[in-house]
Amino acid sequence: MKTIRASISGFGAVGQGVAEVLLKKQDYLKNVGLDIKIIAISDSKGSEINTDGIDLSSALARKREKGTVALEDKSSLEIIESVDHDLVIETTSTDINTGGIGLKNMLSAFNSGKDVVTSNKGPLALKYNELMEASRNSGSNFRFEATVGGAMPIINLIKDVLAGNDVISVEGILNGTCNYILTRMMEENAPYEQMLAESQELGIAETDPSYDVDGIDSACKLVILANSVFGMCLSYKDVDVTGITKITPESLLLAQNNGYVIKLIGEVKDNLIRVAPRLVPEDSPLAVGGTLNVASIQTDLSGTVTVTGRGAGSIETASAVLSDIVSIYRD
Amino acid sequence: MKTIRASISGFGAVGQGVAEVLLKKQDYLKNVGLDIKIIAISDSKGSEINTDGIDLSSALARKREKGTVALEDKSSLEIIESVDHDLVIETTSTDINTGGIGLKNMLSAFNSGKDVVTSNKGPLALKYNELMEASRNSGSNFRFEATVGGAMPIINLIKDVLAGNDVISVEGILNGTCNYILTRMMEENAPYEQMLAESQELGIAETDPSYDVDGIDSACKLVILANSVFGMCLSYKDVDVTGITKITPESLLLAQNNGYVIKLIGEVKDNLIRVAPRLVPEDSPLAVGGTLNVASIQTDLSGTVTVTGRGAGSIETASAVLSDIVSIYRD
Repeated sequence: MKTIRASISGFGAVGQGVAEVLLKKQDYLKNVGLDIKIIAISDSKGSEINTDGIDLSSALARKREKGTVALEDKSSLEIIESVDHDLVIETTSTDINTGGIGLKNMLSAFNSGKDVVTSNKGPLALKYNELMEASRNSGSNFRFEATVGGAMPIINLIKDVLAGNDVISVEGILNGTCNYILTRMMEENAPYEQMLAESQELGIAETDPSYDVDGIDSACKLVILANSVFGMCLSYKDVDVTGITKITPESLLLAQNNGYVIKLIGEVKDNLIRVAPRLVPEDSPLAVGGTLNVASIQTDLSGTVTVTGRGAGSIETASAVLSDIVSIYRD
Repeated sequence: MKTIRASISGFGAVGQGVAEVLLKKQDYLKNVGLDIKIIAISDSKGSEINTDGIDLSSALARKREKGTVALEDKSSLEIIESVDHDLVIETTSTDINTGGIGLKNMLSAFNSGKDVVTSNKGPLALKYNELMEASRNSGSNFRFEATVGGAMPIINLIKDVLAGNDVISVEGILNGTCNYILTRMMEENAPYEQMLAESQELGIAETDPSYDVDGIDSACKLVILANSVFGMCLSYKDVDVTGITKITPESLLLAQNNGYVIKLIGEVKDNLIRVAPRLVPEDSPLAVGGTLNVASIQTDLSGTVTVTGRGAGSIETASAVLSDIVSIYRD
């Protein structure tokens, strides 16, 4: 049995999902020879620290009851700097302007030789190369499957399962909120504003939906793919982005009458990185509905491989975090 | 650089595809620190052996010109038994009645401590547990992504990328020939016999198509999934199988008028393993056309993940062999 001492930085939906998944999968982890001991959990109000291992059930219950896991003042960054452990599970929320605390946490983790598994897109969409260099310099493992497409496997699919293939292009639907709004506009022949309101009521869209509907979230994910798969060196600001707010029910109907659907497609290949609404044949593997995410990976040997899955959800995203952790430490 | 001494047993379409892919990916393999040295290639007429490493271009040219690679009499089994090497790339053709030479080759490889990567379904669909036990006893690696779905990733996707998930069910289209015939019957409102003839002309169906159209090929792949993913202990004879030969254009039209397509679906979950034509909603991710393969994997954490890809083709299948080789030996 290998004991991995880990901290969870950020205890929102994904961080709590990670704690739940670790609880649920204790037997599985034992079977693959891993004992993942959480020695600290931090949220914006402070931290719980227990170098013997935190009782995750109690931490989850306290978070639900009091709105915070904090038992003491220390921040996630102070914990990474001062408490001995192997792995930082970085699940703070995305700050697309500065990278936020997540960027500081990751760099500090690498500086002190710790591995990082993260669901936080911001730092990777802004400072990919800086982070990769820091992880390389310290010999740290750095995995981030959860940043793109939640439970839809893509980064590890390309790097491990499709190993040996040259990737020619990747295109897909990388944002479930936009897909939901467009799908419902088509189903109901209804205007954008109405279906945005519906998706906000259902908790699918945020109160300020601009990060999703303006295509920024898709651009962040696309740039992470571009950098990690194609070895590009871009920030999300380099992506040519058009969102979905100008799409009308009339254009969707016109598309439908000609055998097409309109989807917000992110696309990356040589000399092109773009997020824009595009006509997709309704029998294309990319024409998935609801909140689903999908990606088509065109390769030199395997042809085109398409993968579809849930792009969001705390347990789904935590599952991608778990598989990253297992892939680092399993013998 | 790690040198892996390997033999290729069987030099038909897939075996030649492996040689072509190894030639094409020399730089890639160097980059991941691997030197795959082919020390023997066998086909039904004999072998070429060169312990310093065979010139693959010459071997491919000779095969094309003379119909065989043989320069001496030795069989693949004799090579496995007598020539020192690390890895047997087993690409002999599928014998679903006895397991054929492939079964003997694999057991002999394990007995002498060699690793095996294979595209040959027969031995795995008949004697899965015997093979797994032999590989475990000798501490050999045993990988067989190429046996199910060609370039559609599924076994390694589940085992590696979705690690930590419990798989609840897998269902999908596992035979491209049946999918092609059903797709074309629907497009042309044409009878089975006509579209079978078309697919034979195109080289999609064999002269004796029964292995595909009676569902046996799908059953073999399904049983490999059942055994490797669910830990079942079945042979392909345990699968409840119905083929596509009784499907009429009228039933396809009736389905279509109600928003469905008919597909030959393989399905495995607790207490059920079955191959049969099924109605699939036309907007389902399973409703892919042409010769594509598709599989939907229902999991406890990640929800349903669906993957689509080319189910056949020598380079596509060889690509799955290559990724298995890389996954064994890459550090």
